[in-house]
Amino acid sequence: MPSEHKADNGGIRRKKILETAAKVICEKGYEGTSIHDIAEAAGLTKAGLYHHIRSKEHLLLEIMNYGMDVFEEQVLNQVVAIADPLERLKCCMEKNILLVTHGWSKEVIIILHEHATLHGQARTQINARKKRYVRFLETSFAEAIRAQRIRPVHPKVAAFAFLGMVLWIYKWFRPDGQVSEGELVKEMENIFFGGLERRKQR
Amino acid sequence: MPSEHKADNGGIRRKKILETAAKVICEKGYEGTSIHDIAEAAGLTKAGLYHHIRSKEHLLLEIMNYGMDVFEEQVLNQVVAIADPLERLKCCMEKNILLVTHGWSKEVIIILHEHATLHGQARTQINARKKRYVRFLETSFAEAIRAQRIRPVHPKVAAFAFLGMVLWIYKWFRPDGQVSEGELVKEMENIFFGGLERRKQR
Repeated sequence: MPSEHKADNGGIRRKKILETAAKVICEKGYEGTSIHDIAEAAGLTKAGLYHHIRSKEHLLLEIMNYGMDVFEEQVLNQVVAIADPLERLKCCMEKNILLVTHGWSKEVIIILHEHATLHGQARTQINARKKRYVRFLETSFAEAIRAQRIRPVHPKVAAFAFLGMVLWIYKWFRPDGQVSEGELVKEMENIFFGGLERRKQR
Repeated sequence: MPSEHKADNGGIRRKKILETAAKVICEKGYEGTSIHDIAEAAGLTKAGLYHHIRSKEHLLLEIMNYGMDVFEEQVLNQVVAIADPLERLKCCMEKNILLVTHGWSKEVIIILHEHATLHGQARTQINARKKRYVRFLETSFAEAIRAQRIRPVHPKVAAFAFLGMVLWIYKWFRPDGQVSEGELVKEMENIFFGGLERRKQR
């Protein structure tokens, strides 16, 4: 068997292990999940699993990095080049909502939920990737204010208000619930950018 | 010693144990915290701690109920009687933000974070208390729409957008950071109720 073919199979196998582990950790929490649970779910022995991973914490780091890859590919990279800052922010909200509502993004849920579990360098690495997103939002809000596309607000509060609204969705949204994905995007954009309070007629 | 006095001391002792346990669980996560950790932090032996609690899961339920008591006392009960639905919602946002920013509310953080840890009846009980708040918000938004105090929006999405913005604060806000509590309240109210996008001049 050519080594390239082996590497490909290894990559697919690895991705499958990360996705399986993410599913188990989502259900039981990181601390409540044992290596045995993950091995069993992946159809491997513990020794077999350790052939693919270094440690439970390193596996968590890999899941988070995989989740950040998916996020950057499907959200950040899609909108970063949009010239108008308000359009950029609106498009970013839409893409991020859809990433959270898509049930397969267990890796994203782990990033959101297991915020304090990593230590040392691993924690620094993931935090740096998260901070890149916060800075992108802050910069876009500041730019939108300068361009008079939005009213003056504190860019940091605006960035975290945006994130709170969008990322909290994983806690309550159900695909078979009374609100559709499309409605959710439209309504959230409306609430956040349009404002709720009625203006007095002049 | 009169039994009333004993009961009072027991109540204070119990509250102290709940607060200590909440602090430990906040730091290490529920699954990562052992009964031994909690006993040690509370200055008790394991047997001594079991004199006060039934089980680790029952302790978590008690912490959550205590957190919901604090929330209802400091937020919900303060605003529920405000006649104007928009004023009610604004005041509710302010009170809830201050509850989250006050560092002592570890019990509230546990309610927010350990959402999937309780089982059976205990889970049903806490979920019912949480749902009461969501229903209060939905009803207030619906009322504000009917009274034409806000634009028409989906009350469920508005309720969870409100909750996401406000409850996410525990993940990023630091009392010694660049945004003060007062600014946070003002800016969030401004963003959520006032809307960001500039209106075209007529």
